[in-house]
Amino acid sequence: MQNYISEALSGKRISAKGFAVADKNAKFKPYDFSRHALGEKDILIEILFAGICHSDVHSAKSEWHEGIYPMVPGHEIAGRVIAVGSQVSKFKVGDYAGVGCMVNSCGECEACKKSQEQFCMNGKTTFTYDCKDSFHNNEPTYGGYSNNIVVHEHFAVCVPSDAPLEKVAPLLCAGITTYSPLKFSQIKAGDKVGVAGFGGLGSMAVKYAVKMGAEVYVFARNDKKKEEALKMGAKALYTSTKPSEVKERFDLIISTIPTAYKVSEYIDLLKYGGELAIVGLPPAEVMPQISIDTLVFKAGKKVYGSLIGGMKETQEMLDFSLQHKIYPETEIITADKIDEAYDNLTSGKAKFRYVIDMKKSFS
Amino acid sequence: MQNYISEALSGKRISAKGFAVADKNAKFKPYDFSRHALGEKDILIEILFAGICHSDVHSAKSEWHEGIYPMVPGHEIAGRVIAVGSQVSKFKVGDYAGVGCMVNSCGECEACKKSQEQFCMNGKTTFTYDCKDSFHNNEPTYGGYSNNIVVHEHFAVCVPSDAPLEKVAPLLCAGITTYSPLKFSQIKAGDKVGVAGFGGLGSMAVKYAVKMGAEVYVFARNDKKKEEALKMGAKALYTSTKPSEVKERFDLIISTIPTAYKVSEYIDLLKYGGELAIVGLPPAEVMPQISIDTLVFKAGKKVYGSLIGGMKETQEMLDFSLQHKIYPETEIITADKIDEAYDNLTSGKAKFRYVIDMKKSFS
Repeated sequence: MQNYISEALSGKRISAKGFAVADKNAKFKPYDFSRHALGEKDILIEILFAGICHSDVHSAKSEWHEGIYPMVPGHEIAGRVIAVGSQVSKFKVGDYAGVGCMVNSCGECEACKKSQEQFCMNGKTTFTYDCKDSFHNNEPTYGGYSNNIVVHEHFAVCVPSDAPLEKVAPLLCAGITTYSPLKFSQIKAGDKVGVAGFGGLGSMAVKYAVKMGAEVYVFARNDKKKEEALKMGAKALYTSTKPSEVKERFDLIISTIPTAYKVSEYIDLLKYGGELAIVGLPPAEVMPQISIDTLVFKAGKKVYGSLIGGMKETQEMLDFSLQHKIYPETEIITADKIDEAYDNLTSGKAKFRYVIDMKKSFS
Repeated sequence: MQNYISEALSGKRISAKGFAVADKNAKFKPYDFSRHALGEKDILIEILFAGICHSDVHSAKSEWHEGIYPMVPGHEIAGRVIAVGSQVSKFKVGDYAGVGCMVNSCGECEACKKSQEQFCMNGKTTFTYDCKDSFHNNEPTYGGYSNNIVVHEHFAVCVPSDAPLEKVAPLLCAGITTYSPLKFSQIKAGDKVGVAGFGGLGSMAVKYAVKMGAEVYVFARNDKKKEEALKMGAKALYTSTKPSEVKERFDLIISTIPTAYKVSEYIDLLKYGGELAIVGLPPAEVMPQISIDTLVFKAGKKVYGSLIGGMKETQEMLDFSLQHKIYPETEIITADKIDEAYDNLTSGKAKFRYVIDMKKSFS
């Protein structure tokens, strides 16, 4: 039996090994640390796969805010349950489980009660890494580039034993981020959905929207990925937003664009009552602005942002993805390649979602 | 019989008298002109009352775009039908009728078919004044500061004979502008509605929302009008948007604010799934901007603009207003006071909606 399982079962702090950066300029190095003891509603997961999300890069490099170091990133986690607290009802040892962007919240406010834990009104949403855990003496949280994680069972999703775990991991961020606005805007068969930006998030949005029966159109900077888009079921790929060239008007456009762009051009393409959901976050210095007169003169078109999704919806997304075999394209690496993967993500060279095989990384 | 009635009945162009500005710096002067002949679906209305909207001031002074001069403003029109075309079915001579911001549109596109004529997808929305009338050789349209108007019956609303006509006139812009977002956001009894800005538009929004059974809260720069707000049925008037002071979270906030403000402060006060409807247009040089990262981090809150309303909804608004006696506060003037009224609107001195008694103005 692994050392950390016996620690968990005897109520001690749990030893963990991970890969961390010591500061915002550092390379990844092995890092030994400990996680809080197994609570009665907690489960201990042996991490098998951890996806690398572009936001890991922003966090590790303190590009959004000053990070907490040493930092073990990773919020796309899939693994096996190896210990359960005395009051755990959702999992038993041996089950597969996934953890996404959050590990806790108050559970009592209106938002939490509606399973919108990411918007906990008491400000208790605890992110999977680079966050102070107010439920555990404000100790820092450490993410999925690690051999294990301990988490309240509510914040783990159930993964069937025959699921492809390396594909499940990235669904827990990239999947829910694109699935959630499709549900929030109540997309149904026959609706027209536009997907702006056709990278990792955009391709997931296309796959979900096609499976929901929508007519899907892709907006991309060039037509290099046209075949790919059509193969996924998109009706067309546009490299322009000119209303004279784009005849369709949309019920929903999901913008995953990570660079500067004119938001009003997409608002122009909405139907009356149509919605623009923004999930992509360009760098702060080129963050697009919407002038409110644009909204008034293009009246009746709604704009909103979307940020991951609640736990109930994350489980629903996972079930939907597995049922319909909707997965991201992934490239499996070991932890010694994280720095290289970050470089490729930053330079735009990355073609697929990198997923770290944690077992192999420690062998 | 008035000269212009016989002109209408004999298919000639129709003589009209109005009050116009010759250029953007000019004062109002009497102006004789003619309107297009009565078409088979047109009605001729003797104008009894014409409201003065703040946008008349912007238009007359070319503050939004270069105006068409001489300009006869006025898009809040109430009067009596004095002639009808051969195919008119909605009105008969002697009926009361109202005309708002539009006098025509294509009638065939998806928007027009849904009675959202203000968004005619063929660009044929013809505004009541300061617009080229593509249905009549692109001649300029002239508004309600006039003794008559000829309009397609579809663009006139039915006004019962016992309605207070001087109150009906301003409803056709100020009423529909605030009624429309309440319907668009499907406000129902028990919903929490905020009204930001408590001038002419704001007070109409409060009255409608209260009557729809919503819990209504007012946001104003100071508490001078607190009693007025409470008397209208508002639960409270806030002079702050600090979430620590404002505990309510809203299903809908209607912003009628005509000056610079921070839109994000109102987004903060929305419930998850709540909506911010913008109807107020600050001057171009201080037009508020929304940064899209604000929308992402305040996810699940929708922002949209609203611009008047379609003809079907305008009739519905009028019926609702009359049924529940929801009227703006008005001050009746004659046309020689238009310049003074404009000055008071510009300086913020105007306390009520100015309405021109057209009969008296020509007597």
